[in-house]
Amino acid sequence: MNLSSSKVSAAQVPARERAAENCSAAEPGSAPSEDARLELSIGDYLIKRLRDYGIDDVFGIPGDYVLSFYSKLEKSPINVVGCTREDCAGFAADAYARLRGMGALCVTYCVGGLSVCNSIAGAYAEKSPVVVISGAPGMKERSHGALLHHMVRDFRTQVEVFEKFTIATAELNDPLTAYSEIDRVLDACDRYKRPVFIELPRDMVHVVPPMTHRFARPERTNDAQATAEAIKETAQRITSAKKPVIVAGVEIHRFGLQDELLKLAETTGIPIATTMLGKSVVSERHPLFVGLYEGALGDPKVTQFVEESDLVLLLGAFLSDINLGIYSAKLDPDHCVYATSETLRISHHHYHNVDLKLFLSGLHASAPTASKRDISALKRDAVKETRSSDDPKRPLQTSRMMRKLNELIDADTIVIADVGDSLFASTELTIHDRGEFLSPAYYTSMGFSIPAALGASKARPDHRVVVLVGDGAFQMTGQELSTLVREGHHPIVILLDNHGYGTERYLHAGEWKYNEVHRWNYAKLFDVYGKGHAVVVDDEAGYEAALQNAWDDITRPHLIQAVLMEGDASDTLRKMAERMGQNVT
Amino acid sequence: MNLSSSKVSAAQVPARERAAENCSAAEPGSAPSEDARLELSIGDYLIKRLRDYGIDDVFGIPGDYVLSFYSKLEKSPINVVGCTREDCAGFAADAYARLRGMGALCVTYCVGGLSVCNSIAGAYAEKSPVVVISGAPGMKERSHGALLHHMVRDFRTQVEVFEKFTIATAELNDPLTAYSEIDRVLDACDRYKRPVFIELPRDMVHVVPPMTHRFARPERTNDAQATAEAIKETAQRITSAKKPVIVAGVEIHRFGLQDELLKLAETTGIPIATTMLGKSVVSERHPLFVGLYEGALGDPKVTQFVEESDLVLLLGAFLSDINLGIYSAKLDPDHCVYATSETLRISHHHYHNVDLKLFLSGLHASAPTASKRDISALKRDAVKETRSSDDPKRPLQTSRMMRKLNELIDADTIVIADVGDSLFASTELTIHDRGEFLSPAYYTSMGFSIPAALGASKARPDHRVVVLVGDGAFQMTGQELSTLVREGHHPIVILLDNHGYGTERYLHAGEWKYNEVHRWNYAKLFDVYGKGHAVVVDDEAGYEAALQNAWDDITRPHLIQAVLMEGDASDTLRKMAERMGQNVT
Repeated sequence: MNLSSSKVSAAQVPARERAAENCSAAEPGSAPSEDARLELSIGDYLIKRLRDYGIDDVFGIPGDYVLSFYSKLEKSPINVVGCTREDCAGFAADAYARLRGMGALCVTYCVGGLSVCNSIAGAYAEKSPVVVISGAPGMKERSHGALLHHMVRDFRTQVEVFEKFTIATAELNDPLTAYSEIDRVLDACDRYKRPVFIELPRDMVHVVPPMTHRFARPERTNDAQATAEAIKETAQRITSAKKPVIVAGVEIHRFGLQDELLKLAETTGIPIATTMLGKSVVSERHPLFVGLYEGALGDPKVTQFVEESDLVLLLGAFLSDINLGIYSAKLDPDHCVYATSETLRISHHHYHNVDLKLFLSGLHASAPTASKRDISALKRDAVKETRSSDDPKRPLQTSRMMRKLNELIDADTIVIADVGDSLFASTELTIHDRGEFLSPAYYTSMGFSIPAALGASKARPDHRVVVLVGDGAFQMTGQELSTLVREGHHPIVILLDNHGYGTERYLHAGEWKYNEVHRWNYAKLFDVYGKGHAVVVDDEAGYEAALQNAWDDITRPHLIQAVLMEGDASDTLRKMAERMGQNVT
Repeated sequence: MNLSSSKVSAAQVPARERAAENCSAAEPGSAPSEDARLELSIGDYLIKRLRDYGIDDVFGIPGDYVLSFYSKLEKSPINVVGCTREDCAGFAADAYARLRGMGALCVTYCVGGLSVCNSIAGAYAEKSPVVVISGAPGMKERSHGALLHHMVRDFRTQVEVFEKFTIATAELNDPLTAYSEIDRVLDACDRYKRPVFIELPRDMVHVVPPMTHRFARPERTNDAQATAEAIKETAQRITSAKKPVIVAGVEIHRFGLQDELLKLAETTGIPIATTMLGKSVVSERHPLFVGLYEGALGDPKVTQFVEESDLVLLLGAFLSDINLGIYSAKLDPDHCVYATSETLRISHHHYHNVDLKLFLSGLHASAPTASKRDISALKRDAVKETRSSDDPKRPLQTSRMMRKLNELIDADTIVIADVGDSLFASTELTIHDRGEFLSPAYYTSMGFSIPAALGASKARPDHRVVVLVGDGAFQMTGQELSTLVREGHHPIVILLDNHGYGTERYLHAGEWKYNEVHRWNYAKLFDVYGKGHAVVVDDEAGYEAALQNAWDDITRPHLIQAVLMEGDASDTLRKMAERMGQNVT
């Protein structure tokens, strides 16, 4: 499409490489870095290190405890993106992190920080490297004895909460440790792909630590002998397997291992499936791609293909309930090699301290050959991707809506699916080449998508962002469209309007009022926000025309309110609900 | 006004009395209660006990881990109020709790619970008794070994977070303790006026504990001798003081001690000031009321009156920075009796375990006489309450807007002020009789007011709710207007539109882009929500006409978008910002 660009923009250089490049002088053993000679304040050093990790945009809302740092940010090369709500800033930073390798948000003490708990818990659960920066009362103020505004129980309440769902926290209350604390938490964020939390008291922002400093990246432990043995054992299994398959998960994307994965698959000829959370980690038009593996809930042909395999290489995948079709996956551990950034298990034994990247590259280098498997029956039917125009007045159905979208999306499209049938139906989309698919498929927090569209638009301004969102999820965070308008972006929002929490209707039989969501005239929202084009459609012809018009117009945001048939649901949702509903009585 | 009612509705009976009435059979020493004979499931018992504490409405959003309990709620006499966002449900329950003595919300596991952290932290900080009920994965599901959706780190992450800002938590995972755990946390909520957290695994909702049970309210400890001595000492100080004053805080309202306070004041003749958070704990038309005490930031006459007193009875007040005018309060501890539900300090010595109510009633019963003080100079100028119509085309100024509102509000009005100049300007309003004023004046979390209007409308359906909110705060949670529309309420929303975070502009000099908020056509929002009347005004005549029209029409919600003069700020904000800004460099 017309937004594509053949040159690689800064946005496409992974965070790690930029950090390495900018910090080269600071690697262990090299000469003292620039940092040592620069008299940088704590605030300035934090900004410099964020930029080293590829962060060009920070999301958030200012407040008095963080105003000093906000003013530093605004004067810095970093772009400050004000959001309508803090949790939206959290979702935006999460999406940015998924696309750029690291994201950041900046909020004020407690009222700001405690408003992003859910967004950051989701980033923790789904391994998205987000840096949360919070202002805090100055160290001097704290001695007054009076209760300071925004304080909950004591001064450490906020950091104690964030310890529950971040991989590292730092309180920058001591100039002598501030530089190294910043280094430590940013390295942890990058290494573990989990959120970190930094609290910056407002009277420390301008303090210049009285010391030299150079960045020293901590050594990463890897057990070379365990790695070699694991590679050897796995290679042997590949060679002897008759029906091998790779099931690739989201860590392949987070840790930038797509190339290693593809080399392994292409050298050995092993077919690749992905989990739902891992959707788009490989191009879904790759010749070896066989589909999404979702246990009994997915395409039965894919399920059978994976489950009859005598070797399943589960690479970078979460074994979560939704990812695995609510326990319906039938994978025999005897046949599995389960490798993630945290663990490596072959059949019933474990290898510790094996780096996932070294494991994959070693495996590829050992070049085992695998038996060829016929996957022709699994290739997505070309007919399925062609729109069926037999009845243009046919009422809208979610599954059929995906077909038109499938025609349009290309390598420069980022599809973002919110929770509910937006997510389930989107499994039917084909994401290809460098196209991206983002969703909270494990943590499943509603309201992710519109703020994520803001993050994605900043992370990849040359891409087209398409959002699939239900009405319940939209009402939670839809006001972030306002920021997309203000910032001049042009996402396409497809709002699946079934007047309620549709998934829940399928989970628990009965006419429950609590599933009803107030009906909005969503198309009027752009009158509120000042710019954008919206239409309401309720049949296939109207929807297809609206989507095509939106696609062709990159001058403004678009919202398509797709009024669904009462009780409409994708096939995936129906199957999912049937199985999940057994736990709701 | 026309919404008033002379009979006392159920809504006006304090939670404690209803609990006592309904649980009478369960008091220690009495016959076994109805509970012992009823075979109540854990879910049904929780509902019964919530009703005992006066809860008729529960706010929230359903999700699969809480659907079983939601269905029980929907079939119960409790009204389930679906909100657009979980944090809105938190604010609504907080406002409900402030007006009714206890409030409750019900959400799903983690994605729901972790979305209300900020609302509940605010309720903790400002002592609002809110019960948070969260669904959770069933105990049986947890043994599967797979990661369940919505899970963050482990199954206890959510409860560990809530331990940081609630006074008690319970996990109802054992039928043998579930009844008593419910009793324990609800009693703690009522006793300490702080939020509590209850996690209910979905496979426990229908479980009927195999046991009899009766509610036994734990004994409250009170040191009778310390209480008697403290009363005696305070009474002596009252008798010997030449210039005594009472400064009443928000606990007087939370613990239902208005009558005790008034009796004390009226018997002794001691004048009463209130803190900002305590605004409306006594009628501001009471003959002994002298005004809001806000240190150097408030009315200089009130400040002087309080600070030249030789006895200051600080009753139920938080000593917080905003409450005390950012440390500008000059109160000599030698002259202070500082009594709250948690502490009692006279000059420099402390009494432990003295119940605030017993202290106040004992003090009144001992009937000390105090020196009369002339407060005529402090009575609010009648002219101030009359609108100045010298120039109807005069651009709007916040302070002047309060005057027209002051003419209208009566005993059946609930005024809710959001954070920012909405709060500062509202100090200029006169709340009288049983009129209520709600604001997050200590924790100061933006976005409180619109959801709080929903909670207040449910808590006191016979009152008129007036909201003062800035544009920045409105954009955070304004969609809760949609629920007010759906539920048929008719609040009046006065939106102070200064296109940005106005308070921050005053806190940190400079033209900072981060303070700019995207301009919305707020008046178009009712086109989205389907009902309501909105106008945009920018001069005094337009505003006054709009407010009068809104006041006279209770058939629908109203929104008045008041476009302020650039840089407008109330006098209180200017003074506040000058002092607070010293900490922002």
